[in-house]
Amino acid sequence: MKVSHIGIAVRSLEEAGVNYASLFGEENLHRETVEEQGVDILSFPVGDAVVELTAATRDESPIAKFIEKRGEGIHHIAFEVENLQEELDRLKAAGVKLINEIPREGAHDMLIAFIHPSSYNGVLVELCQKKG
Amino acid sequence: MKVSHIGIAVRSLEEAGVNYASLFGEENLHRETVEEQGVDILSFPVGDAVVELTAATRDESPIAKFIEKRGEGIHHIAFEVENLQEELDRLKAAGVKLINEIPREGAHDMLIAFIHPSSYNGVLVELCQKKG
Repeated sequence: MKVSHIGIAVRSLEEAGVNYASLFGEENLHRETVEEQGVDILSFPVGDAVVELTAATRDESPIAKFIEKRGEGIHHIAFEVENLQEELDRLKAAGVKLINEIPREGAHDMLIAFIHPSSYNGVLVELCQKKG
Repeated sequence: MKVSHIGIAVRSLEEAGVNYASLFGEENLHRETVEEQGVDILSFPVGDAVVELTAATRDESPIAKFIEKRGEGIHHIAFEVENLQEELDRLKAAGVKLINEIPREGAHDMLIAFIHPSSYNGVLVELCQKKG
């Protein structure tokens, strides 16, 4: 297991992108829309992980709701695993509360699944696996 | 630059430790008290980064205040740099609002400095450098 990315909820990718470029530079940025989740993302590579700025594309996006409730800030942390379904099954058997019991499509050509924050002291954890 | 650790504010290291062990296992845990900051930490290695559970040792600890205000959850993200003072000087010159302009002692035998969340869209960023 390794840290895959840190997801940060922001109002504007443009404004936040300028801020974060001061820290991480502007090389190898990646921009993508994940329509299913209603998010636009802008990713900064940091070592072998990624800091992912995430903005809502529509009002009912989970990111819009998060910002409305808590303001901008860290939304989730994602860890990469070798076999996502196996890991989900293992955690479920251990009593962990899964949001997604079956992997779904995420950004960066990954399969992803979220775990409920109540299982990890208020932290929204995403697990992910590279496809193919 | 690389992700050094993700700091998570929790009420009880014992209770949170059991939760996170379900995800990361129990090998190579590290426990430490940083008296200056009023925190007890329990660290889980994840790839070449660390997930750091942090509990307050006294009421006026920043972690106690954080939990009182926002509940348990992600408190900060730390990135490791080669030369911390140089990086702080560079960021200050770029208009970034530093909490610590001079590095101070942190856990894991590191020098650390915090950047104000207003510079990074609500995210408390720590920069750190291995000592010696």
